[in-house]
Amino acid sequence: MAQVRNKQVLLKNYVIGFPKESDMEIVEGSITLKVPEGSSDVVLLKNLYLSCDPYMRLLMYKDTPVSLGFHYSPGSPLTAFGVSKVVESGDPNYKKDDLVWGVTKWEEYSLVPSAQILFKIDHTDVPLSYYTGILGMPGITAYGGFFELGCPKKGEKVFVSAASGAVGQLVGQFAKLTGCYVVGSAGSQEKVDILKNKLGFDEAFNYKEESNLDAALKRYFPEGIDIYFENVGGKTLDAVLLNMRSHGRIPVCGMISQYNLSQAEGVTNMAYLIYKEIKMQGFIVSQFYPLYPKFLEFILPHIREGKIAYVEDIVEGLESGPAALVGLFSGQNFGKKVLAIAPQ
Amino acid sequence: MAQVRNKQVLLKNYVIGFPKESDMEIVEGSITLKVPEGSSDVVLLKNLYLSCDPYMRLLMYKDTPVSLGFHYSPGSPLTAFGVSKVVESGDPNYKKDDLVWGVTKWEEYSLVPSAQILFKIDHTDVPLSYYTGILGMPGITAYGGFFELGCPKKGEKVFVSAASGAVGQLVGQFAKLTGCYVVGSAGSQEKVDILKNKLGFDEAFNYKEESNLDAALKRYFPEGIDIYFENVGGKTLDAVLLNMRSHGRIPVCGMISQYNLSQAEGVTNMAYLIYKEIKMQGFIVSQFYPLYPKFLEFILPHIREGKIAYVEDIVEGLESGPAALVGLFSGQNFGKKVLAIAPQ
Repeated sequence: MAQVRNKQVLLKNYVIGFPKESDMEIVEGSITLKVPEGSSDVVLLKNLYLSCDPYMRLLMYKDTPVSLGFHYSPGSPLTAFGVSKVVESGDPNYKKDDLVWGVTKWEEYSLVPSAQILFKIDHTDVPLSYYTGILGMPGITAYGGFFELGCPKKGEKVFVSAASGAVGQLVGQFAKLTGCYVVGSAGSQEKVDILKNKLGFDEAFNYKEESNLDAALKRYFPEGIDIYFENVGGKTLDAVLLNMRSHGRIPVCGMISQYNLSQAEGVTNMAYLIYKEIKMQGFIVSQFYPLYPKFLEFILPHIREGKIAYVEDIVEGLESGPAALVGLFSGQNFGKKVLAIAPQ
Repeated sequence: MAQVRNKQVLLKNYVIGFPKESDMEIVEGSITLKVPEGSSDVVLLKNLYLSCDPYMRLLMYKDTPVSLGFHYSPGSPLTAFGVSKVVESGDPNYKKDDLVWGVTKWEEYSLVPSAQILFKIDHTDVPLSYYTGILGMPGITAYGGFFELGCPKKGEKVFVSAASGAVGQLVGQFAKLTGCYVVGSAGSQEKVDILKNKLGFDEAFNYKEESNLDAALKRYFPEGIDIYFENVGGKTLDAVLLNMRSHGRIPVCGMISQYNLSQAEGVTNMAYLIYKEIKMQGFIVSQFYPLYPKFLEFILPHIREGKIAYVEDIVEGLESGPAALVGLFSGQNFGKKVLAIAPQ
């Protein structure tokens, strides 16, 4: 049977504090390109694009606080979302050359339970890498979080942190499509420019240049914020709470500023949840998977008509993986970070 | 026209830090027992019972963070919930001797806009003081917060802080009626005993005797908490977040531990909102007023049949007001604190 090289990115050790490239290692293994005899619930995937996302840091804790149905162990390749082509399938629902997206691993080929495939890819007139982003996990995250939990109404005021990231850039554009006023924060002037000039945000600011976030928010939201799409946590959340309007909503998608801290920043303005009758709701994307077909119907025409843009930051090869992942926590990525593993 | 004495509790000055009795003063004014000619939207009330509640502290800030439709000013009597008898009404919806509850003032007689009357009292086979408590603002607060925002299901695990207070004692009993397991925290052994022996809580503990709240919660909730009814904030909330189950709910009713602090305690475990997909929702009682008729239908039979108990801490006279209010913040009250102003 054909044995081929299978390059992998392994977790080397559980991580404390900020992750380093040396917490991972690249190894060259090999794999037999064959589904084991009689395995009707596994598929062999060739990974084309692998997703690089902040939540992955949480799985690098020895005792990860989050239950995603998979976890990391030293010596094993990182599990992650990705776009793959089916090499062989034991599961009759899939066949050779099917394009799929779902939960795979940071390696060239992955033998995974077929239940980890989330969706077959039927539309290939759009970039395939989009299925790690706007048409994949970040897309359905932004859609479910903003529309289902944010319950936006025309004319409402929306604030998005990490606004040029994989999810934030979509939330801002969904807000504009809904007729909201939307302001985003990001970590560089270049990102701020993209938010305003390419992604249609009404305003954007560089949080690193604001010594007083409360004052910044009061400048952009003199009447307060109806929806805060939370991606960062900590000090930003604390300042936002002071500026929410009555009956505001805070979908809590992520808190990237806190993932590497041994002691998270304290949020002191929690009582504003009462004063302003705010609903703050954390979520994990899987609760929105049932909406995916509806989401595709909504978003594909917008992409095809150029009404929604998507900024990707694609790097080549598994060798780029560790730096890509580490870089998320210092804002090195410019848009959705993706590893391109193999041409289709 | 008859002028009578009108004793009042005035706010003396805006308050910083913990309130003191000397932040209020008792004065003897006088009032004409007559609605001004041609005033069709005011009522003259004789106050029978006045409610003494933690939120009142928030109105003692110069810039109160909360909008309740009324605020406090130095030199004016404290606005508060109360049970009153109509002396004279300019509003044709009310007539002399009607019993009502709503927003009145800490004084013997109050001339108030009739819109401040919330409900007429039709059932007087129960103690009239109950309309400041189980049948008044705290009752509908517990009902709306627990059932509408907590969405309890039979068998779920419920934690209530400030559990022997005006609202907490009801939440615990509502939880038992729903078939939940319920644990309460309070600040003395005597309160703990009442929770377990009189109010039917499954367990209760004295938070002052727990050096590690996280460990205490793990002891009482080895499988985690589905609903946390939040009355205190700060360190308790932080420990609770570590112990919530997936898809838990946190109705946020109050944060009494934080109201007097110039810098609130930081809550560090906010990211658990994501990890456990928790919904945390602050509220102000007025959003539940439309449920009041339904609430009465639910609760009156339970009271009459002795299936719900209510612990009141009634003190006599306006003179007792300042100490009663100050005492709330050191847990001096034992159950719902009420001022009895006049026999009916």
